[in-house]
Parts: sequence; C-alpha cells; structure tokens
Amino acid sequence: MSEIEALAAALRAGETTAEALARRSLARIVNRNGELGAFAFVDHEGASSAARRADDELRNGIDRGPLHGIPVGVKDLIDVKGLPATRGSAHFAGHRAADDATCVRRLRSAGAVIIGTTVTHEFGYGPTGDRSRHGPARNPRDPRRMAGGSSGGSAAAVASGMVPVALGTDTGGSARIPAALCGIAGYKPAFGRLPSEGVFPLAPSLDHVGVLGVTARDCRLVVEALASERPVPRGASAAVARIGWLEAAAHAPVMPAVADVTRRALSHHDVAQVACDALDAVWETFSAIQNSEAFATHADRVREHPELFDAEVLDRLREASKTPGWRYVRALHARETARRSVNGVFDRFDLLASPTVGITAPQLGRREVTVSGSPRSVRSALLALTSPWNVLGFPALSVPAGCVDGLPVGLQLVCPPDREDLLFTVADGVAASVAET
Amino acid sequence: MSEIEALAAALRAGETTAEALARRSLARIVNRNGELGAFAFVDHEGASSAARRADDELRNGIDRGPLHGIPVGVKDLIDVKGLPATRGSAHFAGHRAADDATCVRRLRSAGAVIIGTTVTHEFGYGPTGDRSRHGPARNPRDPRRMAGGSSGGSAAAVASGMVPVALGTDTGGSARIPAALCGIAGYKPAFGRLPSEGVFPLAPSLDHVGVLGVTARDCRLVVEALASERPVPRGASAAVARIGWLEAAAHAPVMPAVADVTRRALSHHDVAQVACDALDAVWETFSAIQNSEAFATHADRVREHPELFDAEVLDRLREASKTPGWRYVRALHARETARRSVNGVFDRFDLLASPTVGITAPQLGRREVTVSGSPRSVRSALLALTSPWNVLGFPALSVPAGCVDGLPVGLQLVCPPDREDLLFTVADGVAASVAET
Repeated sequence: MSEIEALAAALRAGETTAEALARRSLARIVNRNGELGAFAFVDHEGASSAARRADDELRNGIDRGPLHGIPVGVKDLIDVKGLPATRGSAHFAGHRAADDATCVRRLRSAGAVIIGTTVTHEFGYGPTGDRSRHGPARNPRDPRRMAGGSSGGSAAAVASGMVPVALGTDTGGSARIPAALCGIAGYKPAFGRLPSEGVFPLAPSLDHVGVLGVTARDCRLVVEALASERPVPRGASAAVARIGWLEAAAHAPVMPAVADVTRRALSHHDVAQVACDALDAVWETFSAIQNSEAFATHADRVREHPELFDAEVLDRLREASKTPGWRYVRALHARETARRSVNGVFDRFDLLASPTVGITAPQLGRREVTVSGSPRSVRSALLALTSPWNVLGFPALSVPAGCVDGLPVGLQLVCPPDREDLLFTVADGVAASVAET
Repeated sequence: MSEIEALAAALRAGETTAEALARRSLARIVNRNGELGAFAFVDHEGASSAARRADDELRNGIDRGPLHGIPVGVKDLIDVKGLPATRGSAHFAGHRAADDATCVRRLRSAGAVIIGTTVTHEFGYGPTGDRSRHGPARNPRDPRRMAGGSSGGSAAAVASGMVPVALGTDTGGSARIPAALCGIAGYKPAFGRLPSEGVFPLAPSLDHVGVLGVTARDCRLVVEALASERPVPRGASAAVARIGWLEAAAHAPVMPAVADVTRRALSHHDVAQVACDALDAVWETFSAIQNSEAFATHADRVREHPELFDAEVLDRLREASKTPGWRYVRALHARETARRSVNGVFDRFDLLASPTVGITAPQLGRREVTVSGSPRSVRSALLALTSPWNVLGFPALSVPAGCVDGLPVGLQLVCPPDREDLLFTVADGVAASVAET
C-alpha cells in the first residue's frame, strides 16, 4: 500500500484528520528543515485552512478522491497563487505568484493540502541541487551529501517524512535523480502528459512536470489526479513483462555495486540484456538542446543582471550560449532518428531498465567523481542515464532499489506511453522484492 | 491566356507537336545558353523521346492535361533520374540523380517534357545567382546583370523563351527574386504544398519548391499539376478583394521608382496602406533560421572538403556557423508570434502586396548597392521583402509589374493558403493592366 492510500484510509476511518496531517507536516518541517533545506517557503496559514476545509468536506460527504486532505509540497518553479515564487534565484526575490499553475489548481481540486514550496536548484538548472538562493538541499540519509536536483527540496521533503508527495520538474532527470539519491520514488510521465502552464521553463522541449513520492504508487496517484486524460485501466500482469536491461553505455559508467543492487531488484523477472547505441547519440543531443533552450530562456537576465545569478549557474549559462545553432538543428534531427530506433527496441521489450544514477549521493560541493577508475564530472554522472528520456519524452520512473554503503540507489524503469500501467505494476513488485531483502 | 494554355491549344489543334516544341526549346538553348548560363545540362535525347511519346499519346487519345507536351526546365537542386545533379557545386561533380524527385515524377505523369536542368547558385545559397560551378546566370534583358537567384537559371530560361515554365526552389525568395529581376512570374505556394522529397535541402523549415513561368497562370497550372491536394475551385472575384499595401519597413528600403511602378500595377483596385511591424521581426528570424539550418546541412562538407565550395559560399557558411543555438530557439518562438500577428492582418485583408524586390537587377559581381541614399548589401536588398514569407510559409507570388530604366520590376502578392484562387485572379488582372500601359 502506498503512503497516500494509508493516510487516505486513516482519514476516512476517522483515525486522523487533514488538519492533524498538516500539523504533523509542519512540525516535521520545523524540526528538520533548518538542517535539510527542503522547503523554501512554508505556508502555515494556507495549509491549515486548506486542511480544515478538507476535513469539513469529508464530514459533509464530499470526497475528492485519494489526495483529499493529503499534504503536498510544490517545487519553487511551479506557481502557487500568492506564495513566493523565487525559482531559487535572486532574480525573483520578493516575487509572488499571481496565479496557480494548472497542475496546482488540479491538486487543489483533488483536495490536496499545499504545505509550501520546496527548494530548487536555481532555475532548475543543475542536478546537484545545491545552488539555490535558499541554500543547498541536503540528503536526509546524510546531510553532508547532496539531495540531488534540481528538485532536491521535494526529494528531501518526502524522504524526511515532511510530506508524502511533492511536485517537481524534470528536464534531464530533475525529479528522478534526487528521488534515487534520497531513497524515494520519482516519476516523469510522458512529455506533455502533465500541464506545464504556470511552471517556470528551463528548456521547453525537455521540460516535464514530475512527481516525487514515498513509493511509485504515490507518484501514480498524483499523476492520475493531475493529468488531462483519464488514467490507463489497471490490470497488467507483471509476470509476462518483457524487460530489457540496458547495457552500460560509454557515456554513462556505473559503479559496479550500484549495477549489482539495481539489477538484483529485478531478480523476480526474466531480464534480457539489451544494447541501445541510440542512447549514446541521445546523450549528445541532450546538451545541445538544453544549452540552446536554457540560454534562450535566460538570455535577457544574463545580459541585464548577471550579478543576480549564482556564479556557477551563470558560468554554465554563458557556456551554454556558445552552442551553435546548427548543432541544435542537428540535435533535433538526431532526436527523431533515435526515437525511431528506441521505438524499435520497445517492439521487443515492454520496459527498459537501468540504474537511475550510476553513483550514490556525492558530498555537497563535489564536482568531480571517480566511476570505475575514470574521473567524471558529477553533473554528467548524475544526468547520464536519466536525460535521454527527456530528449525522447518516454515515461521514466525511479524506484528505490536498496543501498550501497548505506546510501540509497534507484532503479529506473522506462516504457512507451501506453504501458504506464505495466510500468507501475512492475514497480510495485520491485518495492515488495526490495522490502524482502 | 497563359503561355502553356496557348501551346496546349496549338498542340490539340494540330498546329504544332510536342516534338516541335522540344526542338524549338533546344534550338533556343543552343542560340542563347552560352550567353545567359540558364541551363546546366540539356537532355537532348531524353527530351526528344519524351516529346515523341507525348505526341503518340495525344494521337492515341491519351491527354494528360495542360502540361502534356510542354517543355519544362528543372533547377539543378531537384533530382531528375539519370541526369547530372550537381547542385551547382564541385562537391557533386559527376553525380547523377538515382531517381526522380516526387515533383519531377508528377511532371512526367502530367505529360511534361523535361528539357534539362537549370543553373542554381551553389546549393541554392545565394539570391544573386552568380556563384555556381556552371558560371553565373545572366539576365536576358541585360546579360551584364544578374538574373538573380538562387533559381537564376530557371528565370533566365523562361525569360529568354527557352521554356515556358521551369521548376525552382525558394528558401528566402529564390524563385520570386529572379522572376522579378527577369520580368517573368515566380510562385512559392504554401509551405509543404509541393513535395520536397528528392529536392536538395538548404534550410528545411524555409525550403519551398517554386515555379517560374511566363505568366502567373503558367505557374498556377504547374502547381496544380504537382500538388498533392486537389486544386482550389476557381471563381473568386477580384473586384471585391481587400488588398493591403505593405508600408516600406526599416529593413527593406525600396527605390522610389520601383515603389511607383509596382503600386501602379494595382491601380484598378482599392488598396489600403498597412503597416506590419511583425515583418521587421521576421526578417531577423530569417537569418537565424537560415544560418543554423543551412550550416547543419553543409557542416560535414565544410569540414571535409572546404576547397570544393565557391569561396564566397564557403565564407557565408562559416559565418552562418556562428549563429548561436539560443538565437535559433528564439527565432522559432518569434516565428510563431509573428504568424499570429500576420494572421490578424489577414483578417482585415485578403491579400498583401509589396514590390518583390526593392531594386532592379544589379550588375554581375556587385555586392553593395545604394537604395534611397543608403548603402546596402545586395543580398539583403534582394531578400528583404521575400524572405519573411518563407519564415511564415504563406503563398507568395511575383508578377511582372513593368520596368524601371528598362529593367523589369516585380509585384509581390501574398495570401493565406485558402485564398490562392483569389491571388491568381488578382494576378491575372495585374497582367492585363500592365499590358495596357
């Protein structure tokens, strides 16, 4: 059972109230937020009144479904009406959102109680999650380490029990990476499945709204509440799932212990090795696309107020501005070629699996790491396995797969859009299997 | 009556034969091609046998419609099976097309007789039409002057009577500009209307197949034979056309005499002045889009065999490679914004009119020109009024509007895709009115 389902049952059994859940969230934030840097802004008043309203409704027989009365965090890139909307940047110091993002409006319609906004790497531009005007998001398992990013605050908030679920965004892995590093689930549905209106852009053709939750089932419940289309019918059988294990690619080395733990999480399944060279090409297109689109988003700010950026973010943006247009054009072509090739792989497999991240959470501030004897930038080590699925737009889920040296490791499952039910069914099995060991 | 209609009537009346028409074309080419540089390759044998087949068919009651037996030239960027396909470049010296481009296959199905391939500016990358490995295309009115480009060979071939119509391409005005400078009609239908398969790309989101003909009606007949969709029904009344005359924009100065002659060509209509600031913005997007896409097309050739390019074309490509990706991304956004704005103008007007080119044909080799007292590059003076319609993809036609100092001047008419019938009806009226004066 998911965390949300457990709370929903307790609420309806009269064992708790939405107000009590909100108070518990707020108390946990008071206790640990100073240490973890999970929340950027906590809306004590708004959360309390939303919780009271949720309780009133339930008492009056109005039941908005599984999210009714559930505390939720919202990444500081997603507008929540009236709340500070800083995008983790001094550029938006003092700015408040004029309106709810569409996905936030849907959260409210579903009865969720918005606790506040969670810390984002400045403008969502970094998988390390440690460059924000609110300070770094820290890993609840070891606060000297990164939570990952850019949705590091959402991951730290969920992993530390402040909220059972939080919204994030995912441009290259920004929901899945911190989920993996913090030992929770993170899901990026198919491109465009969750509405992006009211979500601050980074690289629009890669940007996804994502969900971080205690379990994959929690993520699923939230996505189904927020998506425009109706949920896919349930009932897939995980037993017959054809799962392909992606062989380590040149651009994406994986620590052997991470490979072992994630591979073992699928030990209840027949899993075939699959080489997918197309993903190497996709990794190159990711940089060209993200660089061009991200600088297009921020060019005016870089010109007019460079001093307001975090220094590292500014350096990266200036570097990104140098990607030539013809490389972007070629990347868009290569993306289409790779999509055809990967669709061919999905003719043979229902799901593709790999580690979410090839390393465990690095220490805060680290920018180099050694993987299998080779030095790598921390950023590319974090992004290597997740970002291809942003380029291609396939649904991609990270589920907790166990630990290496006491640090969480995530298993990534990817599927075509019409196999989301099977994806979650397999993920439920993984959760059960990991729990056993 | 159009040239094609006149020839078609003569063919069916037994006054001439397709073989005689082909022979006449070939004789004219023998006489003037050395001076004009219109044809890159002449297919004596293929043309003769196609003409004989056309005659046989007509004799046997097989009538393929208005193009049956009509001699046609095809720009050297469009593949004609078995013929040299050099794209005006030493890179493709000795190369022959393995297959017909789709539009060429349709020409043949319509019974047209392909005389040969016409000279293109190297790879279609230049509106001056004077940098090709086949030498410059020269203006039949004054061979010391440019025919314009990049479809300069097609324009010179039609304007000198070698063929009544020829296929061209149009990425920034490549069909309309040489048509205007040579005193014939040139038409670029809506983006995608004519199939691009088998046409060598320059900048795919701007590339159009175009048609050059003696009159606008000739262009129309060819487009209707080549397009995938059925022709728009005829019957629009030019009398009620709401025509907007585009005020000269900052980026596109026009010689006063050119403005007078073109404006006068519409003197039978009520014409309202219209300012369209969006077109200034579109002009900037044109460069960013063309630079990025054109270099993406040619990057490998520039790296591996720069020495095979014409020096000026190579310089321009290298300059194009410097356009940053973020500017391309912004240009794509600006294109959508401008499209909405121009659609708004088309709510008030059926057609928009302007000169096709603000100057008359420059002398060969000229790269600077003075317009209204200001120095301008010849390229931007040629492209300024035509290229916005490549960015936006609207149908755009150049019709002969008279002469300035003995040199032809073109009137450009632009419409939304569903008003093509009205566009051609107005163009017929312009032709009649210009003929009167």
